[in-house]
Amino acid sequence: MLAVLCADDRPPLMAAVEAAAEVRYADAAGLPAALRGADCLLVWDFLSRAVEPAFAAADRLGWLHIASTGVDNVLFPAMRQSDVLLTNSSGIFDGAIAEYVLGCVLAFAKDFRTTLTAQREKRWYHRETERIAGRRAVVVGTGPIGRAIARLLAAAGLQVTGVGRTARVADPDFVAVQASSDLHKCLGEADFVVAVAPLTDATAGMFDKAAFGAMKPTARFINVGRGGLVVTDDLVEALQGKVIAGAALDVFEIEPLPVRHPLWSLPNVLISPHMSGDFVGWLPALAELFVDNFGKWQAGMPLRNVVDKQLGYVPAR
Amino acid sequence: MLAVLCADDRPPLMAAVEAAAEVRYADAAGLPAALRGADCLLVWDFLSRAVEPAFAAADRLGWLHIASTGVDNVLFPAMRQSDVLLTNSSGIFDGAIAEYVLGCVLAFAKDFRTTLTAQREKRWYHRETERIAGRRAVVVGTGPIGRAIARLLAAAGLQVTGVGRTARVADPDFVAVQASSDLHKCLGEADFVVAVAPLTDATAGMFDKAAFGAMKPTARFINVGRGGLVVTDDLVEALQGKVIAGAALDVFEIEPLPVRHPLWSLPNVLISPHMSGDFVGWLPALAELFVDNFGKWQAGMPLRNVVDKQLGYVPAR
Repeated sequence: MLAVLCADDRPPLMAAVEAAAEVRYADAAGLPAALRGADCLLVWDFLSRAVEPAFAAADRLGWLHIASTGVDNVLFPAMRQSDVLLTNSSGIFDGAIAEYVLGCVLAFAKDFRTTLTAQREKRWYHRETERIAGRRAVVVGTGPIGRAIARLLAAAGLQVTGVGRTARVADPDFVAVQASSDLHKCLGEADFVVAVAPLTDATAGMFDKAAFGAMKPTARFINVGRGGLVVTDDLVEALQGKVIAGAALDVFEIEPLPVRHPLWSLPNVLISPHMSGDFVGWLPALAELFVDNFGKWQAGMPLRNVVDKQLGYVPAR
Repeated sequence: MLAVLCADDRPPLMAAVEAAAEVRYADAAGLPAALRGADCLLVWDFLSRAVEPAFAAADRLGWLHIASTGVDNVLFPAMRQSDVLLTNSSGIFDGAIAEYVLGCVLAFAKDFRTTLTAQREKRWYHRETERIAGRRAVVVGTGPIGRAIARLLAAAGLQVTGVGRTARVADPDFVAVQASSDLHKCLGEADFVVAVAPLTDATAGMFDKAAFGAMKPTARFINVGRGGLVVTDDLVEALQGKVIAGAALDVFEIEPLPVRHPLWSLPNVLISPHMSGDFVGWLPALAELFVDNFGKWQAGMPLRNVVDKQLGYVPAR
């Protein structure tokens, strides 16, 4: 028996699963009832925080799959301490997010925002813009998405350093990987800082006043990881005080970003609605991954993308 | 004796040249007087069309250098028929223009314009956006700038075909190079069409109603070459009629683009003011190239970037 937590839209491609198991689609309110007697839970509405309050009803749950890479919304203490296997959707978003980050880098360097503003005013406003070749990027997070970002930025001519849990000298995707204990030192060398670490106790709030203070005043900060990696008030202050030169933010501590939030109207900030990985075709791709894992689950085979519940992500093989 | 055609700004780094020769800086009005007795002419104001009407005063001119890659503004019939050597600034702009084109490709694919519009309205507007990996680009123009564009787009995951004067099977920078006689056939396969050919009698107006009609309705057209490559009215019609999906235009038949021109306000068009190659540092780089060529000229050595005045560009070695 499979419970599926979804909001307005149900996952596609579920015919084979529905033929093989009883499937109960539920919203947040219906989740406790759906979880009673369920063997598996698919968290299709991956932004929902409804699993934790409903978890007591999970009387025989063995497996939880989430349609996202980040697992912070389902990795509450009771889940972490349980025997429930957790899998995520790592791999689906890598390429799209990497392209999005490169797009942000180029939008900053080529000053597209001013170009569009001048165009609205029908103003011929010639100016010099930046090269990206040879510029330095620091990617904080060395999982598959961080690696895809590093490869694409390097292909476009940037020098890319990674920041991970442990330093590594030889790495296929980064010029070097520094330990997160050296984060502030690395940040001082970056023209572009990309946040893509998983949100865990160790990473929450890592981009705070001290981190922004360690960056160059010309640096741009790009967050495609999780809003909780950032102390948002410190970021607003750094942007207003020109401690850093700009930010492209796809994720926020509170989503949707509240209408009255100052980030919306800062001149040097690009706000996008948590969509950097959501390419045309992402929903079928997410469903396919779940259906594949469901087949493995039924057959008693090892699942793809098993999350280490203590680390908070799928460890590298 | 050296004449320099400039508008408001003089070239930097001219001390060595001024020590070695008499240098006459002139604007359009002063150019005929400056040309009398001059051995060389540096066209620093490369957008000016003042050389042709002043050319009769050039009584001993041996060399003309222009601070741009395109030479259409100085390749009028009397210049073409003369013995005056023509050199250009090929090589300076390649990397910056390639980055600009990749930026345009990503701005279209990731729909940055809508993102910025939604941000102004403080509206959380989630949507799916396009991947660029695997998409097809056709670059019309296989000179150094077209090749730099092809390499960068390929590095970012696109399949890039070139269109040049003659077809080539094996090419280091393109999947294939097709002859311009097959232009319309190539255009039908492109997600992104990049115009970067030199403006010559053979290329003027090559992007006309028939060319836009040959493109996919989802195609985006990017012009970083010359405005005269395009029949502008046909482009406006193709955009208004959704014959193609969008355009990024850095060059125009008339520059600056007149305030009343319909291109300014088409929703699917990005207008920039002839600046795709003008990176921070371009002016010293242009001056350095001229100063280097001036030293070669004085020493009687072969010059860099000698333009074939019949072809209208520097031929590949």
